[in-house]
Amino acid sequence: MMTYTCGVASTTKNFSRSTNSQLSLLKKNYDRYRFYIHFQLNEQLKCLEQRIETQLAIVNEIQEYFRRRADVEFDYAKNLDNLHKQIGQKHRAQKARRETWIFQSIYKLWDTIVQDTRTHVKYHTIMSDVCGKYMYDKFNEIAEDTRRMFMKCKSVGLASHEEIYKVLNELKSTMKTYHQYQSESKQAEQKLSNILQQMAKIKSAKKQKTMEKRVEKRQMKYTETKVKAFKARNDYLMTIESVNAALQKYCSDDVPDLIDCMNFGFHTSIAKCIQMYLSAQENIKRGRQITIETLNRAIADLDTVVDKQKYLEYYLTVFTIPKKIKFEPHKGDEVSTVNAQVLIRDEMQSRFIQIQNRLAALKTENDE
Amino acid sequence: MMTYTCGVASTTKNFSRSTNSQLSLLKKNYDRYRFYIHFQLNEQLKCLEQRIETQLAIVNEIQEYFRRRADVEFDYAKNLDNLHKQIGQKHRAQKARRETWIFQSIYKLWDTIVQDTRTHVKYHTIMSDVCGKYMYDKFNEIAEDTRRMFMKCKSVGLASHEEIYKVLNELKSTMKTYHQYQSESKQAEQKLSNILQQMAKIKSAKKQKTMEKRVEKRQMKYTETKVKAFKARNDYLMTIESVNAALQKYCSDDVPDLIDCMNFGFHTSIAKCIQMYLSAQENIKRGRQITIETLNRAIADLDTVVDKQKYLEYYLTVFTIPKKIKFEPHKGDEVSTVNAQVLIRDEMQSRFIQIQNRLAALKTENDE
Repeated sequence: MMTYTCGVASTTKNFSRSTNSQLSLLKKNYDRYRFYIHFQLNEQLKCLEQRIETQLAIVNEIQEYFRRRADVEFDYAKNLDNLHKQIGQKHRAQKARRETWIFQSIYKLWDTIVQDTRTHVKYHTIMSDVCGKYMYDKFNEIAEDTRRMFMKCKSVGLASHEEIYKVLNELKSTMKTYHQYQSESKQAEQKLSNILQQMAKIKSAKKQKTMEKRVEKRQMKYTETKVKAFKARNDYLMTIESVNAALQKYCSDDVPDLIDCMNFGFHTSIAKCIQMYLSAQENIKRGRQITIETLNRAIADLDTVVDKQKYLEYYLTVFTIPKKIKFEPHKGDEVSTVNAQVLIRDEMQSRFIQIQNRLAALKTENDE
Repeated sequence: MMTYTCGVASTTKNFSRSTNSQLSLLKKNYDRYRFYIHFQLNEQLKCLEQRIETQLAIVNEIQEYFRRRADVEFDYAKNLDNLHKQIGQKHRAQKARRETWIFQSIYKLWDTIVQDTRTHVKYHTIMSDVCGKYMYDKFNEIAEDTRRMFMKCKSVGLASHEEIYKVLNELKSTMKTYHQYQSESKQAEQKLSNILQQMAKIKSAKKQKTMEKRVEKRQMKYTETKVKAFKARNDYLMTIESVNAALQKYCSDDVPDLIDCMNFGFHTSIAKCIQMYLSAQENIKRGRQITIETLNRAIADLDTVVDKQKYLEYYLTVFTIPKKIKFEPHKGDEVSTVNAQVLIRDEMQSRFIQIQNRLAALKTENDE
């Protein structure tokens, strides 16, 4: 019996040994797998963090561009403003010397050009403020929001990892239990088989009777371990399913969802921010259009005729036609109009006749 | 006779004296008038020269505005260009660290914003060139043309003045001649009248006969001087007309014509010049519109989904779903699927029956 027992014991030991070696190999594989999963999940989070850092670096570059653009716009507006102011100062200083400028329509044009500068001062100052203040703050907000959102998503991701690690731990224990119970079940089966073989060899009915109780006990043990092994296999299989499903779900659904979540509103916010810039550009565009319209009107108002009239009116004394020269008659000369030669002759003729008559009269007088 | 002669002589002297005093007064008036005309005509030319100087001063101010505006535009373009270049340099320097930027559509947006800067560099450089070179040269041309035109007009004006001075000189001489001839005519008339009175007193026919010749001579002299006086009056009157007409024409027609001529093409040239500026403004406006359209497109191209896909594709190894865990069956366990409890029971039941049958068989064997 000892040999049987021994035999049984030996077989059980063999079972145990092979089970242990298989289990330790599986445990090693499991540990390697768990390490790999842990590594990959962490890599993914690191990768997502890097992605966010990349996005924030680009946002930072965009912000930096607009911060420096704000300086450029500010300088431009400042220089235009100086131009406008200095010309205004010079004009006020020379006001007295320039009092006749108002009679020139190009003065109006010049003034329009100078005053129009302020349109650009205004719109480029707005642009500077938009780029350097509003957009700058907005980009800071976007960066903060993105970081906050990432931290939340990261914690959600880490919670998912914990869930995965939990089922992985379950996997380890169910695997262990399965192999242990399988091993126990095999041992019980072997023991049952052994006792049945022993019983077959026993011929005495009494001995058989006593053996029956032991067979029944082993039968019970076998059934019990078999059921446990079945249950353990089911648990193991279902845990495998759980792990696979969890990893599948995490990688296929959760990670893309996390990415979506991390960038929720990111592009919209940036687009809105850039729209502020575009609206400032729209202003500038409108400003340029105003200039075009204003100066076109000023050009159309250039008027040589009106200029001349205003000028001649202002210098009326200089340009007045001098008084007409009047005829200064010789004392006693009562004729003050031009006489045609014929008229002179007629007059001469009549005077001649008159004088001849007088002469004749004188002669007659003398003759008498 | 002496007394008569004396009388006549005395009367002639009186005539002469009064004529001389009237003439010298008229000459004085004439000189004053001529001086006034000379002064006024010169004043007019001075005034016109001042007007041109005013116009050129305004043109110079406009030119100065655009010269300084060119500097402002140049600085703006230069600063924008620096901004673009420095960002480009930084990006090239950090290229390696930024290799994952391409997976972000905001990188495209950033790049578009940076590259778009060149649009403004381009159009504001053109503006600077237009204001500082083309317009500057054009304004110089306008100033030169205006000055040249003025000099021509001035010489035309001076020629007109000479014409006026010529008729004024004629006026002086015709006035002098008129008064002189009138005086001579009056003297001849007086002498004729005297001799006729003397002849009336002579009773001797012989003496009368000798007197007749003298009367005839004086008659001839009278007629001759009378005709000359008439002619002189006509000349004088007509010269007065000429002077008045010349002055009237000069002031009413020539001066306005000169003003027109001096400014011929002046406003048109300035308008054309300003149109160059407006065309540069139109460019800038178009540039701003390009920015608005380009960036709107870049904003519309922001795509979270594509970004995510590109990213996941690039980091495929990191985000690949780990290999499914496979069921590691216990040695000899051939079931690798989950069994429902019922199935296990059925199997157990059948095994139980099988084992019982075997037991029964063993019993029977033993009983035999």
